[in-house]
Amino acid sequence: MESEPTRVMVAVNESTLRGYPHASISSKKAFEWTLKKIVRSNTSGFKLLLLHVQVQDEDGFDDMDSIYASPDDFRQMRERNKANGLHLLEFFVNKCHEIGVGCEAWIRKGDPTEVICHEVRRVRPDFLVVGSRGLGPFQKVFVGTVSEFCVKHAECPVITIKRSAEESPQDPADD
Amino acid sequence: MESEPTRVMVAVNESTLRGYPHASISSKKAFEWTLKKIVRSNTSGFKLLLLHVQVQDEDGFDDMDSIYASPDDFRQMRERNKANGLHLLEFFVNKCHEIGVGCEAWIRKGDPTEVICHEVRRVRPDFLVVGSRGLGPFQKVFVGTVSEFCVKHAECPVITIKRSAEESPQDPADD
Repeated sequence: MESEPTRVMVAVNESTLRGYPHASISSKKAFEWTLKKIVRSNTSGFKLLLLHVQVQDEDGFDDMDSIYASPDDFRQMRERNKANGLHLLEFFVNKCHEIGVGCEAWIRKGDPTEVICHEVRRVRPDFLVVGSRGLGPFQKVFVGTVSEFCVKHAECPVITIKRSAEESPQDPADD
Repeated sequence: MESEPTRVMVAVNESTLRGYPHASISSKKAFEWTLKKIVRSNTSGFKLLLLHVQVQDEDGFDDMDSIYASPDDFRQMRERNKANGLHLLEFFVNKCHEIGVGCEAWIRKGDPTEVICHEVRRVRPDFLVVGSRGLGPFQKVFVGTVSEFCVKHAECPVITIKRSAEESPQDPADD
């Protein structure tokens, strides 16, 4: 008898270049790496826990041009944000379904670093996979990196998967 | 057809408490975690690359009480060191053999941080597993940590496995 599946949390976010529902290059890479190198053909041995954290400030910024005249407008905005997040997760869940690996996906709002660490404490995965843009120290001064924070603070083992040079867009801060 | 096995480098060292041929608590933990959570029943899908780095200064220190009177004495010392390292690796190789996962094991001499990063560049594993004593910032000032250096500098994904609190000896710098 095999024991319980290994529970792998994968943090995923939207592309800065293409926006919702497209996944960022680095989170897509981290997800695909996990399937190819860890899960492999052992689909019953793993369960993927797909967490998408929506950054609240950015949501507000996207709606700067909108006019809010009634409570309904806010409800619609919240529904649109939620739909965006769901479409992003749909890509990952579909892929898991295709290859037959169990998964759960959910959305949280807030600061990605804090929320990911909080969800790790709550859900207790066996380990966490995060993508990374692979920025140099100079570039990091301006953008900060979620992966480094998680490596230091998440209460479970963390593996960081960097994009390859070929996958990186012209501006390495884009993803 | 399954693709080539996933190549996992695991850095292992000797116990500071019990000495050779016993493995340190943290490297044993990292190895066992890899088998239980990653390899699982998919033994043909993985190959473990077991690297033991012998610290040269410590070797010299162990031999402070010895008398070297002839070139033969030095040869014997070198052979004893080599035998120590081989006995350490034997434990890990036997375990791999028992469960039927492919492995390769080898010894290098030098500074563990530099040697591990060098071997990663040479061998190109899919990822590296390192154990960690899980020291706090105050304790780290005095002992330094191999795992943190590897996370920053190794040219492959790195996963750090901490000892649990129950596994830690009275002095957390021991291992």
